[in-house]
Amino acid sequence: MEQKQISKAVISRLPRYYRYLGELLEDGVERISSGELSAKMKVTASQIRQDLNNFGGFGQQGYGYNVKYLYMEIAKILGLDRPHGLIIIGAGNLGQAIANYTNFERRGFIIKGMFDINPALIGRVVRGVEIRDARELEPFIAENDVQIAALTIPKTMAPEMADRLVKAGIKAIWNFAHTDLVVPDDVVVENVHLSESLMRLSYRVCSMQEQKEKERERAAKKKRP
Amino acid sequence: MEQKQISKAVISRLPRYYRYLGELLEDGVERISSGELSAKMKVTASQIRQDLNNFGGFGQQGYGYNVKYLYMEIAKILGLDRPHGLIIIGAGNLGQAIANYTNFERRGFIIKGMFDINPALIGRVVRGVEIRDARELEPFIAENDVQIAALTIPKTMAPEMADRLVKAGIKAIWNFAHTDLVVPDDVVVENVHLSESLMRLSYRVCSMQEQKEKERERAAKKKRP
Repeated sequence: MEQKQISKAVISRLPRYYRYLGELLEDGVERISSGELSAKMKVTASQIRQDLNNFGGFGQQGYGYNVKYLYMEIAKILGLDRPHGLIIIGAGNLGQAIANYTNFERRGFIIKGMFDINPALIGRVVRGVEIRDARELEPFIAENDVQIAALTIPKTMAPEMADRLVKAGIKAIWNFAHTDLVVPDDVVVENVHLSESLMRLSYRVCSMQEQKEKERERAAKKKRP
Repeated sequence: MEQKQISKAVISRLPRYYRYLGELLEDGVERISSGELSAKMKVTASQIRQDLNNFGGFGQQGYGYNVKYLYMEIAKILGLDRPHGLIIIGAGNLGQAIANYTNFERRGFIIKGMFDINPALIGRVVRGVEIRDARELEPFIAENDVQIAALTIPKTMAPEMADRLVKAGIKAIWNFAHTDLVVPDDVVVENVHLSESLMRLSYRVCSMQEQKEKERERAAKKKRP
């Protein structure tokens, strides 16, 4: 299978397929038609067929998709078939929330360490992982198999920390700080900007309200003689 | 200005413009050219001109954009010029992280209440907001001006809670539970699925590694006589 041929749009939809297929597996479902999957996922059956055809002819007329096979193939493409060492920089509420999320580990993201500069946090243990002094970061990365760093620190501190992580050999930053990090081309940054998500929500609520008001106005006009 | 004419793609880029313009304002910058903004944001100047032209002719040849005006206009479109009451359902680490994020309040998102079912959390106060018993949810929503509910509870509990929220009159759910909520057409759901973000990161790291390996192989082949 040539990974390069799969479009970015398909890739962005894969985690959702992976989730649904995982739930089907848990429910003991062995095969599913694109029609059934379509009804579950609220995506058209033709979209599903197009997307999943990227991974060869797993769907067979009158048989449907082999759930487990498809699940494993998608896992491979997403890199979930191998372990990824992860450290968390910033052991505040958000960092601890990530450390407490057991599902990440089930998917191969192994939390190797947590770091903070706050003496009140250093030494505490979150689900078996000790919070270490951020000054120990570089030797820790050198001695452990760490690939991904989750950055859950204030945005003012994020650029300097990103530089340190890159110099220490980190290849991927999961960035929760609300700023755009500047990193070399071979380092991957995936942003989770919560305030941007909240703004999109706000936009959509306001649009919905405006639409309703307009409909009400139109209805009121109609009633008038 | 007709909001409806602005494309979805432009809307999705607005929060980032808003952030950069806000930082310029804080730095005392009154006007900026599309070229300067382009260098800062790492977006082409022509993309910036196209995007911002949606909001009328704020950019003038040889003058550039009026930072404050543009900032205020984008705030209006995103609905940040008016307050939004927000409650947090689930006062664990993630819920508390949201409650502690002061920037949300600066942008008009007022945290009115937090709710949980865990007796160990009920009664605690996070940045002035008391954690209440989830059983008090419906009367609280009826008596307070609440528009948005952030859902930071396990995915098994999320669908039932979403139903309760909708029945109680909530118009927008900021959903952190890793499941797709089924809500009426006039209720807005904005998902923050952290594990999907982590899977995208994993995909990108693996692709990057594969690419490097291929380059190495190619280089090795070239060296051979």
